[in-house]
Amino acid sequence: MFNKILIANRGEIAVRIIRACREMGIETVAVYSEADKEALHTQMADEAICIGPAASKDSYLNIKNIISATVLSGAGAIHPGFGFLSENSKFASMCKECNITFIGPSPECIDNMGNKSNARDIMKKANVPVVPGSDGAIKNEDELLEIVEKIGYPVMIKASAGGGGKGIRIVYEKNELLKSYQNAKAEAKASFDDESIYVEKFIQNPRHVEIQILGDNYGNIVYLGDRDCSMQRRNQKVLEEAPSPVMTDSLRQKMGDTAVKAAKAVSYNNAGTIEFLLDKNNDFYFMEMNTRIQVEHPITEMITGIDLIKEQIKIAAGEKLDFSQEDVRIHGHAIECRINAEDPERNFMPCPGKVTDLYVPGGFNVRVDSAVYSGYIIPPYYDSMIAKLVVYGKDRDEAICKMRRALGEFIIEGVKTNIDFQFQLINNKNFIDGDYNTRFIENMFKVDK
Amino acid sequence: MFNKILIANRGEIAVRIIRACREMGIETVAVYSEADKEALHTQMADEAICIGPAASKDSYLNIKNIISATVLSGAGAIHPGFGFLSENSKFASMCKECNITFIGPSPECIDNMGNKSNARDIMKKANVPVVPGSDGAIKNEDELLEIVEKIGYPVMIKASAGGGGKGIRIVYEKNELLKSYQNAKAEAKASFDDESIYVEKFIQNPRHVEIQILGDNYGNIVYLGDRDCSMQRRNQKVLEEAPSPVMTDSLRQKMGDTAVKAAKAVSYNNAGTIEFLLDKNNDFYFMEMNTRIQVEHPITEMITGIDLIKEQIKIAAGEKLDFSQEDVRIHGHAIECRINAEDPERNFMPCPGKVTDLYVPGGFNVRVDSAVYSGYIIPPYYDSMIAKLVVYGKDRDEAICKMRRALGEFIIEGVKTNIDFQFQLINNKNFIDGDYNTRFIENMFKVDK
Repeated sequence: MFNKILIANRGEIAVRIIRACREMGIETVAVYSEADKEALHTQMADEAICIGPAASKDSYLNIKNIISATVLSGAGAIHPGFGFLSENSKFASMCKECNITFIGPSPECIDNMGNKSNARDIMKKANVPVVPGSDGAIKNEDELLEIVEKIGYPVMIKASAGGGGKGIRIVYEKNELLKSYQNAKAEAKASFDDESIYVEKFIQNPRHVEIQILGDNYGNIVYLGDRDCSMQRRNQKVLEEAPSPVMTDSLRQKMGDTAVKAAKAVSYNNAGTIEFLLDKNNDFYFMEMNTRIQVEHPITEMITGIDLIKEQIKIAAGEKLDFSQEDVRIHGHAIECRINAEDPERNFMPCPGKVTDLYVPGGFNVRVDSAVYSGYIIPPYYDSMIAKLVVYGKDRDEAICKMRRALGEFIIEGVKTNIDFQFQLINNKNFIDGDYNTRFIENMFKVDK
Repeated sequence: MFNKILIANRGEIAVRIIRACREMGIETVAVYSEADKEALHTQMADEAICIGPAASKDSYLNIKNIISATVLSGAGAIHPGFGFLSENSKFASMCKECNITFIGPSPECIDNMGNKSNARDIMKKANVPVVPGSDGAIKNEDELLEIVEKIGYPVMIKASAGGGGKGIRIVYEKNELLKSYQNAKAEAKASFDDESIYVEKFIQNPRHVEIQILGDNYGNIVYLGDRDCSMQRRNQKVLEEAPSPVMTDSLRQKMGDTAVKAAKAVSYNNAGTIEFLLDKNNDFYFMEMNTRIQVEHPITEMITGIDLIKEQIKIAAGEKLDFSQEDVRIHGHAIECRINAEDPERNFMPCPGKVTDLYVPGGFNVRVDSAVYSGYIIPPYYDSMIAKLVVYGKDRDEAICKMRRALGEFIIEGVKTNIDFQFQLINNKNFIDGDYNTRFIENMFKVDK
């Protein structure tokens, strides 16, 4: 096992990883930008090394400085968290070259799955259902027109290197097609320095249901149930629950087996998530794979009892999975609300600033993964998510009641947050009925206007 | 089900009960003393009624005012929590007379079990093993001498109406016996207004292991595993764990069956705890029954998944237990550290005052039941326990590592607390080995001196 791990991230996920390491008796090294000198992860780790100025590209994306900090501190491994360098295969390769264990899949897995159109091809070959669309990146406008003619409108144009909702356009009519294509290309170039674009049939009002998998370095792969992440705003998840309200045992098994098949197709190791679109007929299609731990991993931990960060570390250290698919049991129901420092009344504009007062909910089956403390100044440079409120109930009803109670207790003063918005969601009749899809929040605001 | 419940208590247990009610959709009424105007339970409940001055006898023990507040607020039931009026059968009777449901056992159960020497007689008749000793209260010094002659030294002299460690003397030699008897009698008179005293064989270095039971109003009684509460200081529990490190499946079943037998002997309803002394040969003896929810109930909740407060409320509302003994499963391991505002370096003297800064630990399987917030002024009038830190692990090792991590994160500034002391306990080699008994802390300090 590693003696020391460097965490190449910030915020609540860095704190989450520090906690897991500490419980495993592993020393931790935080890295921080100049803006994060007082951040919780910086204070909480055993050591902390400044890796550059506030801008992510100069600090949390600064591969050279992060590798140097790792070597300097004597850490044997790097946990990349999510975002930042977590799906950067070059970074994973460089770790390998420097004899540092990258806590995540091999660079080849990241490459194969990271490029969305590439991944699609691999999935098709592995008989994993994919949404009808182009075979890989589109070469030109003529090819685009031809494919769309075949699969029919509406279609979704997506950046091959995409993520976080960037470089995506939905096209309902022919006269929008080429303009959207050019726009998406430009956005893809700007966001990912890669203008390749692919197109697929747009599944209307689907649910976003994903399967958590864990694979060790010896070919053992298990799935750990599903998560419903349909509650999104602009392709960003807002609230997640596990299991999905529409899940059945047989659908979960089918989806789980498919996810394992997908992971096996790329000899996947470590934690990963296969995201599916689920339509009204319970047909599902591979959307993408996230080759890293996800924001919403806690809800899987709550319903399986398995600590995913500890499993990631154990796998990276060369341990075999010490349980098999038959040992994985799903109990109860979990919900996560992402708590963001943002103003829902001003189009969810980020609201950095000083947290002047804080009361964190507690009690039975309430979990808070947070980067906030009283007096903390939320910097304006990074993602607005500052905490995750996670609850568990013996069933979905109890989980909803518990989330309602916990959100009601949560006090964050000094900055605006989406707590009240989450409270609205959890009390929404359609949500309570489990009747929602990825367009839910968008439609909610349409009704409001 | 009740529409509204009044909580006749304060501190973290009042908050705990408010949370359960809120999750069940039941309105809550807090009662508070003049010293608790700003207390968390006062702020958190839907309504709050002042019931008198700071002193407990004028407020939290003021039966008249509490009954009036209940009638005034229209609450259909009272949850008494622990301490205060929770084991007062007169109060339970008066509730009944006023058509208010007392959330706890019948007044008869409280009477039968509340009087320690009475309970002992009932247990003997029910074939529940008890420590050899007097049959009920001792009539006079001659009888005391005669019994002690028979059972042999050391012996324990206890107040029949006792609790909280008051009115207890351990006697190792004949020449101490009569003096200790007179002292215990005086203390019993002063503390409980009842000078009856009984005597029993003193089991040396026993473990304190207890069984949680739940009984409904229809004669169904189940046990929910065991708790080890051997980590005590002056008969006050400090740290509890479930299951006991020395527990085996067969011993748990034997002890559980005995606990159910004990509860059935008094037709017990609602939540209760049978406390046993466990000696080195795994023989166990009935010590006493607590006819109420206990401080350490969360560790049972963690290993069984059953919400004891909700069960109490459902039982009191006339619902049948919706699970049977076979459905109760013990998973993993839980530990609770009581966080007290006290100074371990000054003989654990209570340290009331203002909490100037607070950081509460979080993350996977960490639970905090607390009455504290940043800026809260801990009043000097009540128990010094301000929070309970509870962790869960898949096994005892993981739970210990998690408690170490969580205690390390906990920051309470402005008042002294026992957090560092708990940290010492959790890191103590004997504790880690599970090798401790009720004399552990006492001996620890002897070595220090």
